[in-house]
Order: sequence, then C-alpha cells, then structure tokens
Amino acid sequence: MTAKQMLAQRAEAVESYLAKCLDGRGIPERLLDSMRYSLLAGGKRLRPVLVLSWCSLLGGDANAAMPFAASLECIHTYSLIHDDLPAMDDDDLRRGRPSNHKQFDEATAILAGDGLLSEAFVLMTEAAVQNGLPAERVLKAVNVLGRAAGSGGMVGGQTVDMEFTGREGQVPLEELQKMHAMKTGALITAACECGAILSGAPEEDVRNARKFGRAVGVAFQIVDDVLDVVGDEATLGKPVGSDAEQGKSTYPALVGLEKSRQLARDHVDGAVGYLARYNGPENEFLTLLARYIVDRVY
Amino acid sequence: MTAKQMLAQRAEAVESYLAKCLDGRGIPERLLDSMRYSLLAGGKRLRPVLVLSWCSLLGGDANAAMPFAASLECIHTYSLIHDDLPAMDDDDLRRGRPSNHKQFDEATAILAGDGLLSEAFVLMTEAAVQNGLPAERVLKAVNVLGRAAGSGGMVGGQTVDMEFTGREGQVPLEELQKMHAMKTGALITAACECGAILSGAPEEDVRNARKFGRAVGVAFQIVDDVLDVVGDEATLGKPVGSDAEQGKSTYPALVGLEKSRQLARDHVDGAVGYLARYNGPENEFLTLLARYIVDRVY
Repeated sequence: MTAKQMLAQRAEAVESYLAKCLDGRGIPERLLDSMRYSLLAGGKRLRPVLVLSWCSLLGGDANAAMPFAASLECIHTYSLIHDDLPAMDDDDLRRGRPSNHKQFDEATAILAGDGLLSEAFVLMTEAAVQNGLPAERVLKAVNVLGRAAGSGGMVGGQTVDMEFTGREGQVPLEELQKMHAMKTGALITAACECGAILSGAPEEDVRNARKFGRAVGVAFQIVDDVLDVVGDEATLGKPVGSDAEQGKSTYPALVGLEKSRQLARDHVDGAVGYLARYNGPENEFLTLLARYIVDRVY
Repeated sequence: MTAKQMLAQRAEAVESYLAKCLDGRGIPERLLDSMRYSLLAGGKRLRPVLVLSWCSLLGGDANAAMPFAASLECIHTYSLIHDDLPAMDDDDLRRGRPSNHKQFDEATAILAGDGLLSEAFVLMTEAAVQNGLPAERVLKAVNVLGRAAGSGGMVGGQTVDMEFTGREGQVPLEELQKMHAMKTGALITAACECGAILSGAPEEDVRNARKFGRAVGVAFQIVDDVLDVVGDEATLGKPVGSDAEQGKSTYPALVGLEKSRQLARDHVDGAVGYLARYNGPENEFLTLLARYIVDRVY
C-alpha cells in the first residue's frame, strides 16, 4: 500500500467521526449546513491522522483520542473559511467547490468559522469526559492546541502573511519561515505534540513529536508553495498561480523552484530522524507519510 | 455603596488582569493592538465578575479562577468585534469609539476576533495549570463554556438573530426568547455555572447558578432592547434606535415598553430567588447586581 492509500484508509475513521460530531448540539439549520459544507468537503485529514498516529506510536489509546483529533480538522476548516473571505484572501474556490461565503453568504461564513472553532474546544474536552482520558493530559493538550491555533500561532501567522502581501520577493527568507511556522506549522506541530501528550508518554517523547511536527510543517508549506507554481487546478481545487497574482511571498519566488524542492526534502529527512528510536507499524506509516508530502511535487 | 459602584470595584481586578493577559504570547504587533483595542475599551466586565462572585459565594478560590473569568471577557469581546463587521450588523461605533474594523480594517478585525476566542481557551486551561485548580473541574468548565459560546449557543443565536432581521414584529415572542437565550443568555449563564463548577460545589449549587444566570440573562437582554428605545447615545456609546432601523425583532417592538419592563422585573425576581439559600457578602452583591440590571431602564 502506498502512503497515499494508507493515509486515505486512516482518514476514513476520521471522516465517519466528523460526519456525526456536530449532531445533537442544537445548532440552527443554516449554520449547521454551512459548517458541514466546509467540514465535510474532503481534504486529506492530515492533522487528525497525525494526532492518532503519534498517540498510537507512543502506546496511547487512539480511539479515545478521536474527538480530540477531529477538533484539529474543525480548527483547520474554520481557518480556511475565514482565509477565503473577501476581506482576507478573497478566494471563490476551495477544494474545487465554491468557498463557504460564495455558497452561503459572508455573515454565515464568518459565523460558521466561529462555530467550528468553538466546537473544536468542546470536542477536545469531550475526549476526557466521554472516553476516560486523564483530565490533566487533556487539559495540557487543550492548552497546547489553543496556543497553536491562536494569535501567537495560526491566527498570528495569517496576520503576518497579509502584511507580506504585495511585497513579493522583498520579504527575507527568515521572516517568511517564521510566518509559515505560525500560519501552517503551528497546527501540524500541535497535532503531533497533542497525540503524544494524550498517549501519556514522557516529556522526551512529546519533544520528539513536536520536532517531527515542526519539520513536517515546514516541508508541507514549501510543497504547497511549489504546487501553486507547478500543480494543476483540477488536483489543487483552486486556481494555480493565485499566490503570485496576489503578490504573496513564497519559497519559489524567494529561492527558486529547485532550491525549494531541496529544502522540503531536507526538512523531511530531519523529521524522519526523530522517528528513529521508535518501532512498529506507526513508525513505518509516519515515515512514509513524511516522505509522501514531498513526493507530491514530483 | 450602590450596586454600580460595587460592580465597578470588582471589575477593577478583572481590568488589571485583562491588561496583561495577552503579554508574552508572541502575538504580532498589529494583531495585538487590535485585540487590546477592543478588549480594553471599557465595559462593565459583568461576565468575569459573575464567574468570580459565584465562585466566592460557594466557597471557592476566586483568585485562582481569575484567568477563567478573564476568558469570558475575551469571548464577549470577540463576539462584539465580529457582530459589528459590515457583513453582520455593520456598526461603525462601539462603546463610543470606532468599531474594530473601522479603527483597523476588516481582515484585522476578523483575525482579532479569532485570536481572542482562541486565547480565551488558553486562559481557561491556565486557570488549572498555574493556579492549582483541579483539572477535572477546569475541564468540565471549559466544556460548559465552549458549548455556551459555540454554534448551539452564542454563535447560533447570532445566526438566528440575523435571520430575524427585516421581520420586525413578525417573530413570535417564543422564538425571540429562544434566540436571546442563545445569543446573550448562554454566556451569562455559563459565567455563573462555571464559577460554581470551579468552586467545587455540588451539582445542586451548580444548578442554582445556572438558573440564576438564565433569569439574569433574559432580564439583561430585555433591558438592552428597552435601552435601544429609551436610552441616550452618550450612555450607550452607540446610536439609539439602531435595532428598529435594522428591522430587528425586539421586546418593545413585540410586547411594548411597559410590558417589557415588567418582564425584566419578573425575571430578576426569579433570579434573586435562587440566591435565597446562600448567605454573606456575595449573596448581597449578586442580589443587588441582579436588581441593578433592571434599574438601568428607569
């Protein structure tokens, strides 16, 4: 089985959980439609799978961590809905379909995002309440994920990204890297770290998970930038070249295509290094997954 | 001392905490400015004070609950920022100053709201991590507050409220009440309930706190509607009559001014009833506070 097939297989359980995780919460119909429209629009479910895999790798109960894993997809989805808004990146398409505010309206899209972010934290805490995970672990993981998603993490990264727009090629690589570490990296890193925390593994393993996540996160962003140049619209589900059109600073714009690919490979090699001390099928899967991220650009 | 003065005195400690609660989180400058602009724009700090008072009333450690209390003001503030956006209520003024998107820009306002909601959950979890509150209690309170703030609570209420706009006088009172219970009531109720949960009091007291919060929340919303008709712009910090202008369903529009005032009084009487079994200064304060809410319309 290829890494892509393995990821798809693991994503199936996440998909089933996501399909019902908003049921019975008293959500008004139109709002629920809008939240589900974006939450169930496909996607690789990379972040939840990273939570589950790191939890399993370190001997934890991945089933108990499922609500927590699902919360990462809620957070990821809310960020996409808000990023697509006219006042932000103004994207009409997302995953090959009208973006949320195009399908519904701006007000509903803003509220669907707000709703998904709030429900994410409800899901996280349910991991303990319903599945018997120790409260201390869950609370620690909520704190880590809250910081990663928040204004010193993903939200902050989006702010900085918008400030960069129109300065293509003028933003130093170091600043670009810092922005990506916040905007994309923080959530991917938190996925791995929270999986480790929920497993109950010692701090040393949590640190390995965090470092793996950081390296994979950087590689992932570089590959995303590269795909915006060399990908095709059908695969991406959004217009190719939109970064350049919006004057966004990207790796290819700053260091060129070939150097960007090399950088992504280097980071994946680094990530795989943090798996060296572990064994078993999850180790194998995470290694293949990390490599697959870079393979997408070939 | 009047209830207003007592509330102001208790709000001072909240104010000091809010002023520094976003420090050292690595928040980009413009985003931090925008978050602080709205978070520190005054306001009565009613929700945090309710958390602290209910915690004290039931014998809990109010100081330890301060980060949690502050999180309610972060959530309340984010909801005001997003509600004021052009795609939502399109309000240019908030508390007598330009609303967030007027002072900054729409993108920054959306992100400041997203950031405040995320930081709220970080603050909630820090209540346990830093102040020694038992993790089980904090986790339970996070779950309650997440639901109240989310798509089955405040966010859902805002969605329904927008659907009502333009149907002034045509929305049945029952539907209006349900909308308010979600939009305004849920957070006020959660403030009281979470204060009780964090105190470690038994379920019976938590239930009393919840019922008190529900009744106060309804009264609070009726009074808000009444003030939009009879208040003055300087006191309110926003244009009078904006509800009617926007075709919003309100209590005065549905049942008239006098009946609205009577309804508010009835609910406050109900709220005070839930305090009957408790003694001490917090009981006295909460009683005065509940009465003060209605007195604002006279």
